[in-house]
Amino acid sequence: MANAPVQRMSQLMAKTLRDDPADAEVLSHKLLVRAGYVRRTAAGIWSWLPLGKKVLANVERVVREEMDAIGAQEVLLPALLPREPYDATGRWDEYGQELFRLKDRKGGDYLLGPTHEEIFTLLVKDQCTSYKDLPVILYQIQSKFRDEARPRAGILRGREFLMKDSYSFDTADEGLAEAYARHREAYQRIFARLGLDYRIVAATAGAMGGSKSEEFLAPAEAGEDTFADCPNCDFAANTEAINYALQPVDGSAVPALEEIPTPATPTIETLAASLGVQAADTLKNLLVKVDGEIVAVGVPGDREVDLGKVEEHFAPATVEMVTEADFADRPDLVRGYVGPQGLGEKVTYIADPRVAPGTAWITGANKADTHAKNVVAGRDFEVDEYVDVVVVQEGDPCPKCGTGLKLDRAIEIGHIFQLGRKYADALKLDVLGQNGKPVRVTMGSYGIGVSRAVAALAEQTADEQGLCWPKEIAPADVHVVAAGKALQTELALDVAGKLAAAGVRVLVDDRAGVSPGVKFTDAELIGVPQILVAGRRSAEGVLELKDRKTGEREEVSVEDAIARLTA
Amino acid sequence: MANAPVQRMSQLMAKTLRDDPADAEVLSHKLLVRAGYVRRTAAGIWSWLPLGKKVLANVERVVREEMDAIGAQEVLLPALLPREPYDATGRWDEYGQELFRLKDRKGGDYLLGPTHEEIFTLLVKDQCTSYKDLPVILYQIQSKFRDEARPRAGILRGREFLMKDSYSFDTADEGLAEAYARHREAYQRIFARLGLDYRIVAATAGAMGGSKSEEFLAPAEAGEDTFADCPNCDFAANTEAINYALQPVDGSAVPALEEIPTPATPTIETLAASLGVQAADTLKNLLVKVDGEIVAVGVPGDREVDLGKVEEHFAPATVEMVTEADFADRPDLVRGYVGPQGLGEKVTYIADPRVAPGTAWITGANKADTHAKNVVAGRDFEVDEYVDVVVVQEGDPCPKCGTGLKLDRAIEIGHIFQLGRKYADALKLDVLGQNGKPVRVTMGSYGIGVSRAVAALAEQTADEQGLCWPKEIAPADVHVVAAGKALQTELALDVAGKLAAAGVRVLVDDRAGVSPGVKFTDAELIGVPQILVAGRRSAEGVLELKDRKTGEREEVSVEDAIARLTA
Repeated sequence: MANAPVQRMSQLMAKTLRDDPADAEVLSHKLLVRAGYVRRTAAGIWSWLPLGKKVLANVERVVREEMDAIGAQEVLLPALLPREPYDATGRWDEYGQELFRLKDRKGGDYLLGPTHEEIFTLLVKDQCTSYKDLPVILYQIQSKFRDEARPRAGILRGREFLMKDSYSFDTADEGLAEAYARHREAYQRIFARLGLDYRIVAATAGAMGGSKSEEFLAPAEAGEDTFADCPNCDFAANTEAINYALQPVDGSAVPALEEIPTPATPTIETLAASLGVQAADTLKNLLVKVDGEIVAVGVPGDREVDLGKVEEHFAPATVEMVTEADFADRPDLVRGYVGPQGLGEKVTYIADPRVAPGTAWITGANKADTHAKNVVAGRDFEVDEYVDVVVVQEGDPCPKCGTGLKLDRAIEIGHIFQLGRKYADALKLDVLGQNGKPVRVTMGSYGIGVSRAVAALAEQTADEQGLCWPKEIAPADVHVVAAGKALQTELALDVAGKLAAAGVRVLVDDRAGVSPGVKFTDAELIGVPQILVAGRRSAEGVLELKDRKTGEREEVSVEDAIARLTA
Repeated sequence: MANAPVQRMSQLMAKTLRDDPADAEVLSHKLLVRAGYVRRTAAGIWSWLPLGKKVLANVERVVREEMDAIGAQEVLLPALLPREPYDATGRWDEYGQELFRLKDRKGGDYLLGPTHEEIFTLLVKDQCTSYKDLPVILYQIQSKFRDEARPRAGILRGREFLMKDSYSFDTADEGLAEAYARHREAYQRIFARLGLDYRIVAATAGAMGGSKSEEFLAPAEAGEDTFADCPNCDFAANTEAINYALQPVDGSAVPALEEIPTPATPTIETLAASLGVQAADTLKNLLVKVDGEIVAVGVPGDREVDLGKVEEHFAPATVEMVTEADFADRPDLVRGYVGPQGLGEKVTYIADPRVAPGTAWITGANKADTHAKNVVAGRDFEVDEYVDVVVVQEGDPCPKCGTGLKLDRAIEIGHIFQLGRKYADALKLDVLGQNGKPVRVTMGSYGIGVSRAVAALAEQTADEQGLCWPKEIAPADVHVVAAGKALQTELALDVAGKLAAAGVRVLVDDRAGVSPGVKFTDAELIGVPQILVAGRRSAEGVLELKDRKTGEREEVSVEDAIARLTA
């Protein structure tokens, strides 16, 4: 039997569903399941059916070609990794519950790789001894594992997923900057070829460590990231990465601090209502425990604390909320009436830059049912450290030009980092420099969510009828539909064979006993870019060619169809 | 930067080594490490460097093309799998210590897939509802995990390895037989294209269950399997799969059983020497515990018991050797002097067919320093069950024609199984039959060790100089060596560029400061099929083309080289 480029729906493992799966919340999850691309194997763990595997392979191919084009060398590292290198960098512990850990039969500790910085660092340490062996960029396309607390959104956030991860190694900072720039350009080409709408935004470094870092975000309702976009200048950033500068004001004219009775006002809402002031006039003091020590976080009463930013600031220490038991242990902390002016040395006080020196606030008086007003930062209380910790809101000023920011949801599809020497320091990666002395190597790490990109594409390109793939990524170039009668099936198979012979990737719906309506609906759902129907004018050799995206249709002869689809 | 098909050694991550790695025992391990194809990440866990990854990808491509050609559909299932389906089939326990088990953050039990029968069965249960949806063959190329007790031999027996596994689903036994036959043919094509010397032999089914099963074995010194080959007929089998028929003899003329004093003869050797008989005249009784119950295994004194066969027979029960403590508990079992004639009902006695009814033996008398002679099977003792349990030896008769068998070592590179309904029964996989009633599905499972095939190829094709790949699998078509001078490097890069433009995969050794001798040695070690040297006649535009395998060399012009290499 020869190679069979014509894929017949009558044989294809791709059961379509009319209804959304009960647990699906986002569009890509619903459609990829309904169109028979993926199936759930366990929470956050997915199987790729034939159509899905083809799309995934197409994304892989584009990524591979563009990585090869920047001189990156493909390797394949294991998923099952020994503990020791991750101990050396501290990530065995820092990764917390997100890391899948296991023991082998001899009791040795292993993990399932969430990313591979450590192993690549050791590989280069083994392979490269001289500055002449660098620079080098290595990459792999491989399954990664992260034990997400709440796996959701189908393949958008799974616990096992396919990733392209690459790592650059250089002796000099300029080399790292160049490797970073080459990745940035390669990513732009990759996402353009994939047909993804994306933005490049400033990002925090997360658990990776390191300094310069940008994210490639694909705007989509289903996204878990929020990014801010300035309508006036070129500023764009993940909201987690936005930091406002501290701008002190003159608070010398503020009257002296005054305590005021405020019975039954333990929340900002009850306090503001009782005093007839704005929430923005009050100072909210959130108590958290950082590695067990209590820390108070001060923000304007109308703003939410971004716990992610707090965690990021204190990492690798763990941050927890205080509990009833903590208040019971500390009678000096009066729940609902905490104020920074009476915390003393036993509690570290961090505040958002909006609580700048000289600003005056209404805040707790550290007594039940009592607040204080005219509480001035720097006069009545000291801030141990200013940290930008509030959740950014639509309309907040652009840190660059002051214009009100626009917020959007997006899917993180790529991430590039200048790691610097964090991993090289931990694992002692040196090469001999030109002067014969050891030089510590500097690294970058760069990721693309390959399986996630499939979901992002589905999110961005789908319409009410279903999926709608760009040509380079689609599981086939044309979906030939045999309306049903024997003559129509014959014509459909004939044209499918001719198209395949001309190098066109063909999916043909040759199913018997399935109504034309169901076949048309399935073709729309599956989302191959061109749909060619052998219908009522089949006897004359006339088919209908429909563009899946625009919906435009026209009648064509077999020859026309072949000419058009091979053009 | 355009796609760069010329791979430069000056940039390639492939550090060659002059010495064998200290822990390497087998040829492929030594050479794949020395030539810079793979590196060890942990015991039995390997990283593929760029050259190794290319070879692996070439094997994958051949496997993919031939699987597609038999109408198999490619999917991708996760490696991280939930416990429940493996509980349903009993394999969660049966797999024993070989299975990597782990818990997620919520305490749920997971495993790393050793093979995927359960998950594929559930997938088909979800996707197929009618006999019209079958037959179907699904496959994937994916990392598998097995916690080998003694990972050894480099990538020949790793704990994480790349496998092609496929599964067929049919309603009728004839369909299964056809899917099996198609796989058998596809495997023949695959291994022929890979350039592997292989044999197809009868195999035991191992932990898979099921009935008909054959192995594809690549003869090699480093192999862990032993297979028997008949020089006279077409019989070939894994020695573990050989079973001899029971052939009773007439023992009526044997005198009555007689006990004889045999002081200090607890072993077959001491007994045979003391009595002046052959070991083959004595009956050896090995004691084992099967799920804690003592079982005696009788074989001729000159034969070894194959514990693998014993385990296979009693699976899924566990088989252990008896200990001092067991003898202490059982005074009726006299160590070194056990005989089947006095075991009573408390010990099950199984025997090899060579201990056929009517045969007479010298064996233990169940008293210290005493044996018995003229002990006749079926007269003086009963055999509860005959099981072929001896280790097959060179010269044992062919079970088919009686000729003395030849034994060889080999690497298992493929395995095909007719599983039947074991998994479908456990997971209740039915489809509606033509008559409207549910039909239980029958399955086959088929594996190719993709990463192992790379090692097997290295074993079979390497010579004293190093690796020596067949063209289709090699990491490049030609290895261009620039002997060293600027003019030679210029010519090498020029011809490399022209070859690449003509579609030839080129590796060019453009390293500066490396002697020609080292470059030639590296080229032989790396094993690309053709070596093209820009050496002393470079000024005239004359190169030397060497066939890596035959060692034949001839002088060629640039045009000749291109013509020859693109032919």
